[in-house]
Amino acid sequence: MNILFLNGPNLNLLGQRQPEIYGDTTLADIEAAVREYAGGKALVDFRQTNEEGELVTWIQEASGQANAIVINAAAYTHTSVALRDAISASDVPAIEIHLSNIHAREEFRHHSLIAPVCQGQICGFGLTSYLLGFDASLSLKQH
Amino acid sequence: MNILFLNGPNLNLLGQRQPEIYGDTTLADIEAAVREYAGGKALVDFRQTNEEGELVTWIQEASGQANAIVINAAAYTHTSVALRDAISASDVPAIEIHLSNIHAREEFRHHSLIAPVCQGQICGFGLTSYLLGFDASLSLKQH
Amino acid sequence: MNILFLNGPNLNLLGQRQPEIYGDTTLADIEAAVREYAGGKALVDFRQTNEEGELVTWIQEASGQANAIVINAAAYTHTSVALRDAISASDVPAIEIHLSNIHAREEFRHHSLIAPVCQGQICGFGLTSYLLGFDASLSLKQH
Amino acid sequence: MNILFLNGPNLNLLGQRQPEIYGDTTLADIEAAVREYAGGKALVDFRQTNEEGELVTWIQEASGQANAIVINAAAYTHTSVALRDAISASDVPAIEIHLSNIHAREEFRHHSLIAPVCQGQICGFGLTSYLLGFDASLSLKQH
Amino acid sequence: MNILFLNGPNLNLLGQRQPEIYGDTTLADIEAAVREYAGGKALVDFRQTNEEGELVTWIQEASGQANAIVINAAAYTHTSVALRDAISASDVPAIEIHLSNIHAREEFRHHSLIAPVCQGQICGFGLTSYLLGFDASLSLKQH
Amino acid sequence: MNILFLNGPNLNLLGQRQPEIYGDTTLADIEAAVREYAGGKALVDFRQTNEEGELVTWIQEASGQANAIVINAAAYTHTSVALRDAISASDVPAIEIHLSNIHAREEFRHHSLIAPVCQGQICGFGLTSYLLGFDASLSLKQH
Amino acid sequence: MNILFLNGPNLNLLGQRQPEIYGDTTLADIEAAVREYAGGKALVDFRQTNEEGELVTWIQEASGQANAIVINAAAYTHTSVALRDAISASDVPAIEIHLSNIHAREEFRHHSLIAPVCQGQICGFGLTSYLLGFDASLSLKQH
Amino acid sequence: MNILFLNGPNLNLLGQRQPEIYGDTTLADIEAAVREYAGGKALVDFRQTNEEGELVTWIQEASGQANAIVINAAAYTHTSVALRDAISASDVPAIEIHLSNIHAREEFRHHSLIAPVCQGQICGFGLTSYLLGFDASLSLKQH
Amino acid sequence: MNILFLNGPNLNLLGQRQPEIYGDTTLADIEAAVREYAGGKALVDFRQTNEEGELVTWIQEASGQANAIVINAAAYTHTSVALRDAISASDVPAIEIHLSNIHAREEFRHHSLIAPVCQGQICGFGLTSYLLGFDASLSLKQH
Amino acid sequence: MNILFLNGPNLNLLGQRQPEIYGDTTLADIEAAVREYAGGKALVDFRQTNEEGELVTWIQEASGQANAIVINAAAYTHTSVALRDAISASDVPAIEIHLSNIHAREEFRHHSLIAPVCQGQICGFGLTSYLLGFDASLSLKQH
Amino acid sequence: MNILFLNGPNLNLLGQRQPEIYGDTTLADIEAAVREYAGGKALVDFRQTNEEGELVTWIQEASGQANAIVINAAAYTHTSVALRDAISASDVPAIEIHLSNIHAREEFRHHSLIAPVCQGQICGFGLTSYLLGFDASLSLKQH
Amino acid sequence: MNILFLNGPNLNLLGQRQPEIYGDTTLADIEAAVREYAGGKALVDFRQTNEEGELVTWIQEASGQANAIVINAAAYTHTSVALRDAISASDVPAIEIHLSNIHAREEFRHHSLIAPVCQGQICGFGLTSYLLGFDASLSLKQH
Repeated sequence: MNILFLNGPNLNLLGQRQPEIYGDTTLADIEAAVREYAGGKALVDFRQTNEEGELVTWIQEASGQANAIVINAAAYTHTSVALRDAISASDVPAIEIHLSNIHAREEFRHHSLIAPVCQGQICGFGLTSYLLGFDASLSLKQH
Repeated sequence: MNILFLNGPNLNLLGQRQPEIYGDTTLADIEAAVREYAGGKALVDFRQTNEEGELVTWIQEASGQANAIVINAAAYTHTSVALRDAISASDVPAIEIHLSNIHAREEFRHHSLIAPVCQGQICGFGLTSYLLGFDASLSLKQH
Repeated sequence: MNILFLNGPNLNLLGQRQPEIYGDTTLADIEAAVREYAGGKALVDFRQTNEEGELVTWIQEASGQANAIVINAAAYTHTSVALRDAISASDVPAIEIHLSNIHAREEFRHHSLIAPVCQGQICGFGLTSYLLGFDASLSLKQH
Repeated sequence: MNILFLNGPNLNLLGQRQPEIYGDTTLADIEAAVREYAGGKALVDFRQTNEEGELVTWIQEASGQANAIVINAAAYTHTSVALRDAISASDVPAIEIHLSNIHAREEFRHHSLIAPVCQGQICGFGLTSYLLGFDASLSLKQH
Repeated sequence: MNILFLNGPNLNLLGQRQPEIYGDTTLADIEAAVREYAGGKALVDFRQTNEEGELVTWIQEASGQANAIVINAAAYTHTSVALRDAISASDVPAIEIHLSNIHAREEFRHHSLIAPVCQGQICGFGLTSYLLGFDASLSLKQH
Repeated sequence: MNILFLNGPNLNLLGQRQPEIYGDTTLADIEAAVREYAGGKALVDFRQTNEEGELVTWIQEASGQANAIVINAAAYTHTSVALRDAISASDVPAIEIHLSNIHAREEFRHHSLIAPVCQGQICGFGLTSYLLGFDASLSLKQH
Repeated sequence: MNILFLNGPNLNLLGQRQPEIYGDTTLADIEAAVREYAGGKALVDFRQTNEEGELVTWIQEASGQANAIVINAAAYTHTSVALRDAISASDVPAIEIHLSNIHAREEFRHHSLIAPVCQGQICGFGLTSYLLGFDASLSLKQH
Repeated sequence: MNILFLNGPNLNLLGQRQPEIYGDTTLADIEAAVREYAGGKALVDFRQTNEEGELVTWIQEASGQANAIVINAAAYTHTSVALRDAISASDVPAIEIHLSNIHAREEFRHHSLIAPVCQGQICGFGLTSYLLGFDASLSLKQH
Repeated sequence: MNILFLNGPNLNLLGQRQPEIYGDTTLADIEAAVREYAGGKALVDFRQTNEEGELVTWIQEASGQANAIVINAAAYTHTSVALRDAISASDVPAIEIHLSNIHAREEFRHHSLIAPVCQGQICGFGLTSYLLGFDASLSLKQH
Repeated sequence: MNILFLNGPNLNLLGQRQPEIYGDTTLADIEAAVREYAGGKALVDFRQTNEEGELVTWIQEASGQANAIVINAAAYTHTSVALRDAISASDVPAIEIHLSNIHAREEFRHHSLIAPVCQGQICGFGLTSYLLGFDASLSLKQH
Repeated sequence: MNILFLNGPNLNLLGQRQPEIYGDTTLADIEAAVREYAGGKALVDFRQTNEEGELVTWIQEASGQANAIVINAAAYTHTSVALRDAISASDVPAIEIHLSNIHAREEFRHHSLIAPVCQGQICGFGLTSYLLGFDASLSLKQH
Repeated sequence: MNILFLNGPNLNLLGQRQPEIYGDTTLADIEAAVREYAGGKALVDFRQTNEEGELVTWIQEASGQANAIVINAAAYTHTSVALRDAISASDVPAIEIHLSNIHAREEFRHHSLIAPVCQGQICGFGLTSYLLGFDASLSLKQH
C-alpha cells in the first residue's frame, strides 16, 4: 500500500520560525514520525510545495500510484477550486488534515473548499493529525 | 485513563433504520468496537441521549472523572450554545467526531458551534471516526 | 390506522392565557375535536411536551406504532435540527401543521427546519389545521 | 357558497409532460376530483392562466362573486408582488396551495410572496392539496 | 405638450375596497383631478393595466407621442426589469410617483427597480403625488 | 402659514464648485426662487448648516413655529438616526427632498434613514424639487 | 429540423432607439440574418413579445413542433420563474442567448433564472449570438 | 411580592471552574446575596437547570405564583424560541439579566431571542446584575 | 464620588411631545429623581446635548473629574464610532442606559456601537434605568 | 489569423477519468476537432496548464501573436483576479468558454471573475463550446 | 505651498491616556514633528476637532487656501458621508492617513467612506504616517 | 540595510499596454526611480513574478536577507491566503503598496487579505507609492 502525503504553502517553514508559538517540530520531523509510524504497513511518499498548480499535478499523478492521499493544503484549503477539482476527478481517495483546529481560527479559515470532495477531515491535533490521517487511510482500504 | 464517549440525538437509531443508506452498524456495535480497540489502554464510558440538557450535565460531571471527552453531538453540533459553554467551561479536553463528513452535507451542517472549543475535529470515517477519536485522546495525554 | 399527533412547547397553555388574542380553545378542546373528527377512521394518539429531546424520542418510538405523524412543533420548528433528523430517519411519514400562518409572523418563523423532511405543511387555519392534518394523513395511506 | 380555484403558469401542462416524474394526473383530472369532492357543498369555479395580470384581474373580480379563493400561483408565488397586492386588497379570503412541498425544493421556492396575505398555506399533498384547500375554505365560513 | 400617466396593477381598485384605509378617492377621481389641474397647460393621456407587458408596450409607444411619462407602476415597481429596460430605452423622460410613501412600508417596497432610470421620484402625497408629477413634467420641458 | 426649509452639509457650496457638473445655481439662488414661488402663499424660513446637531435642534424648535418642514438633509440623510428621531418626535410634518435622484447614485445613497418618518420623498428635479416640496407642504395643510 | 427563436421584452425596439449605443441593427435584420444563415439546414420560427405569459405559452406549444428553442428572454431572464418552469417542463431543449455580455453589466443582470434549465448560455456577441445559438441547436441534434 | 430567579445551563458551575477567569463566586453565593438584598421586600425563588424544556415549564408555572421573573438564560438566550414564546405568553413580566456584557463577547452572543419579549435587559455587572434585576422587578410593580 | 450622566440627542424633548406615547416625565423630572435618589451617596452632574462632538468632548473631560459615566446616547448609540472611541480611550468606566428596550424596537436600534466598550447595558425600565445606572456605578467602585 | 486556445487546471485529465460521467473525449480529441474545424480559416495554438501564473504569462505573450484568445480557465474562472487583470490589460480580445453549463452547477461556479473583461461567454455545449468559441473569434475580426 | 493637516475626534487625547498602549507621543508632538519635517518646503496648518460639521467646514474653506489636505478623520472615517461629500466637492486634493493599520483592527474599521474620494491612503506607521502624507502631498504638486 | 521590493502578476506589463490609461512608466522605470531614491541609504532587491507560489517562496527566503519587504501583490492581494500566511510567519516586516487607490476601484479590490499582517498600507500615489514604501521601511528600523 502507498500513501501520498501532500503539504501546501509555508509548511516548509514549520519549526523554523516563531517556535514559541508553533513549537519546534519541523516538517522533516513530521515526515520522520510518519515514516516510523507507518512501519511496514505502507509506503509513504511525503512532499511539500508552495505552488497551487504543483499540488494539482501531484494529485493527478497519484492515480495508479497511491492508494490514498493525505493532504494538508494549508492556505490553498480556503482558496483553491483547482485543488477541489483535482481531488474530485481523481480515483484516489483523499483525507484532509490540518495541524491546527481551523474552526477555532479566523472566520475565513472555517470554510474548506476541498472538504466536500474528501473522505473526511482531521484537524487540531498537531503532528498527531498526520498519524490519524495515516490510520484513516488504512481504514479506507478495508471498504 | 478514562475516556468518555458522548453521543447525541438519534444516534441510538443507528443501524436500525434505512440500512441501505447508513449500513447496519448499530451504536452497540460501535461501543463494542471502541471497547475492543481501547483494550487495556483506557477505560471507556459510552453514553447516548436525545436531551441537550443531559449532554450538558454529563460534560459537567466529567470533570475529575474523565481524562478526555470524545463527543458526537449529532444535531446539537449545529444548534447548541449550551454544549459549547459546557465544553468551554470544563477542564476536560474534548474531541469532536462525526460519522459522516459534515462538510459534504447540507449547508447548515458545515458549521459546528462546538468546534472552536474542542481540541480538534474528526469527521467522515464512520465507525473509524470513533477509533481515531480514541487515539487522539491518548495523544492529548502526552502534552 | 394509527395517527400520532405531537405538540411542542407552550401549546399546553393554549386557551389559558390571553384569550382575547388566541381565543379560548384549549389543547384539550383540540384533542377532543380531533378524536371526534377521526371517528372510526383512525386511532389517535395525542401528546404534548416542552422538551425537544422528548419529541425526538416520541418520533423514534412511532416506528411500527403509527402510520403517520402530525406534528405541531411550535418553537422547535425553527431551531431543532434534532427533530429534523428524527423525522428524516423515521419510516413514518410526518405532516407539519401550525395553528397560525407562520409566514405572516416574525421573519424567524418563516423558516422551518423540519419542512424539507415532512410530506407537506399546513398552517394558518387554527384548530382546522389539525383536522386537515388528519385528512392529509389518510390520503398518504392511499399512495 | 362559491369557491374560486385559480391556477398559475404551466399548471395546464400537468400530466402531459414527464409523467414518470409528475404522474399522469392532468389539471382536468384535478378539476373533476375537486368538483366531485365539492358535491353539493359549494359551487366551484376552476381556472388556469399563464398570465400574471390575468390572475390579478380574476382576484379583483372575485369580490362579490366568490366566498373564498384557493390559489396555486405556481411560479408567480415567488415573484409577484402584484398578486400579493391583489389578494391583500380583496375582501375575499385566499388560501395558498401547492402540489409539491415548496420548502423541500430549490431555495428560491421556499419564500412565498403571497403567503403573508393569505389565510394559510397547504403544500406537499399533490391532488389532495386541492381537496384540503376546499375544506379549509368551508372552515373559513364558520368564523 | 402631451403627458402620459401610466398606472400599474390593482390601481383600478382604488377607492372601491377598504375605504377606511385607502380613502374613497377612485382612480377616476384622480384622473379628473389631474385633467382639471392640467387645464390648458398640457394634454393628458391617463391609463391603467394589470399587465406588465402592456405597460412595457405603452412606454414603447410613447415615443413621438408624449413629452413625458408619469408612472405609478405599483407592484411592478419592485419586480419588473422589463419596465426598467423600456424606460431606459425610451427617449421620453419618465417620472416615478406613488400614492403612499414606499420607504415607510414593507422592506421589499423600499427598492424601486425603475428609479435609477427615471428623472426622479415623488411618493407619499396621495392624489397630490400625481399633481406634483404633472408639475415636474412641465419643469423637464424647460431644460 | 410658515414653511421651514432646512439644508444639510455641503449645500452651501452649491454652484461655487464644479459648475460643469452641478450647474451654477447657488443655494442663494434656490432660496430666492423658493421665496418668489411662495409669493403670498406662505412665509419661508430658509437655513443651512454643516452640523448634524444643529439640524436636530432646528427641527425641535420648529414646533409651534412652522406648519411644515421641507428638508434636504444631504449626507445626513443616510447616516443620521438623530435626525430621524427629531422628525419622528416633532408634531410638524416633514417632507424629504433632494436635488439629485438619490436612487440613481451610489448604493449607500439609496437608503434614507429619515424617509420612513417623513410624509413623502421628492428627488431628482434639481431646484424644482424645492418648489414641489413647497407645493406638497401646502397640500398637507388641506388634510 | 425546426428551430424556434424567442425574443423577450423591448427587443422589438432594437435599432430604433439610441443607435449610437446599440447600433442600427433591427430585430428584423437579425431575423433576416438568421434565416439566411439557416439556409436549408433548418426551418426558423422567429417571434417577439413583451408578455411574460406569452413566452411561457410559446414554450409550451413548442413541444412536438420544434427541435430546439433559442431564447433571448431579455429582462425576464432575471425575474421569471415561470419561464424557468416552462423550459424545465418542456421536452424541447433550450439555448439561452443574449446580445450583450450580461456578466459585464449591472449586478442584477449577472444572474439568470433560466440558465440552470437551459443547455447552455451564449452571450456578448451581438447578432452573432443568434448565429452561434443556431449552430449550438444543430449540435444538440447530434447527441 | 414573589420574584422568581431563573438560571440557565452551566450557571451551576459558577465559581467552581477557572476561578482565575470567572472569580470564585458560586451560584449559591449569588442566591445568598440576592436573598440578603431582598430582605423583607420580596420572597425569592431561585432555580437553575440545564434543560431548555424545564425553563419553559418553570416560566409557565410562574403565572399566579410570581410577580416578576428575573432570568439569566445563559446559552439559551441565543438559541431558544421556546423560551421566547413562554415569556411572551406569560402574564408575569420578565427581566433579562447576564453576568457578563454579552455585547462585548462573540458575535453570536450579541443577539438575544428573548430580549424583545422581556421588559428590559441588564448585563455586564456580575453579581450586581442580579441585584439590579431585583430592583427593576420592584419598580415594575409601581406601574 | 462623582457620577456624570450624559444624555444624547432629542432627550431634551422628553415629556413635551406625544405624552400619550412617552408619558409626561421630562428630562428635568429625571434629573430631579436621580439627584434625590443619589442623596448623599454621590455628586451628580447631569447634561444633555444634540451634538455628537460635544458628547465626545464631555467624555474626554470626565477624566479626573468623574468616577463613572452613565450615558444614554440615544440615536448616537447606533451610529457613533466617535463616542465609542471616546469611551474606550477614557479611564472613567461608562454604563450604557436606555429608557426603552432597544432590543424590542426597529432592527437598527438593536445594535449599539458603544456597548462593547461600556461596563454593561441597562435598558427598558424608563426613569428606573437611570436609577439602576446610578446603583451600577456605585457597585463599580467596589471592585 | 491566429487564435490561441488556453485550457486551465485539470483539463488535461479529460476523458481519462470517470468516462461514465464526462465521456471519453480527451483534450487531444478536442484539439484535433478544433484544428479540423479551423481548416484554412485560422492558425490554432492550443495549450493547457495547471498553473495560474502560466496562464497569466501566456495571455501577456499573446499580444502581437494572436488575434483572439479562447479560454476555458476551468477552476481559475472562479478564483483568479490575476487572470482577469491579464485579460483586461491585453489588447487581444478574449472569449470565455466552458464544457459544462456553469450556471447549472454548484453556486460558487455561477460567478466568473473573468466574464466582465471577456467579449462574451459560451458554456454548456461540451466540445461544441470550443467550435462556437472559434466562430465567435472570427466574428470579432469583422468589427 | 500650503498643506492642511486635519485631525478628527479623540486625537487630541493622543499620548495622554493609556500610554502603555498608544505610546506617549501627543498630537502636539506630531504637529512639531510635521513642522520640522516640512522645513521650508511647505507651510503647515494643523488642526483638530471632535465635531463632524467643523471638519466639513474646514475642508470647504481649504479651497483657495491649501494645496493639499492630509486628513486623519479617525472615527468619522467610517461613518461620515458628509466628510466624503466635502472632499469630493473640493478642488483641493486630499490624502487619507491613519496612525494604526485600520485593516488589522475591528471589522467596522476596515471600510473607509472617504477613501474612494481621496488620492490615496496611508495607514499603520504611527507618526510616520503624517510625514509620508506630507511627502505624498508634495508629489501631487508635480502632476 | 536591505529592502526587498516584490511585485505581483501583470506588473511586468506596466507602461507597455494602454499608456493612455496607465501612463508610460514601466516597471523598469519604477525600479530605477527606487534605486536612485534609495541612494546610499539601503540596498534594494527588486523582483516581479506572475506566480503566487514564487511570491510565497521569496517572502520565505527574505528572512535573514532583508530588513523589510515592500510588496505590491497586485491581484494576489485579494485572493491569496498563502501570501498572508507567508508574511505572517516571516520575521521580516512587510509594507503593502499599490499604484492605484484600491478603495476607489471595484468592490472586490477594496479588501486586502494581506493587509492585516502587514505593518501598514500605502496606495494611490503611483510611482510615489514605492518611494513612500521605501521611507516607511526606513522608519520601521527606528522602532
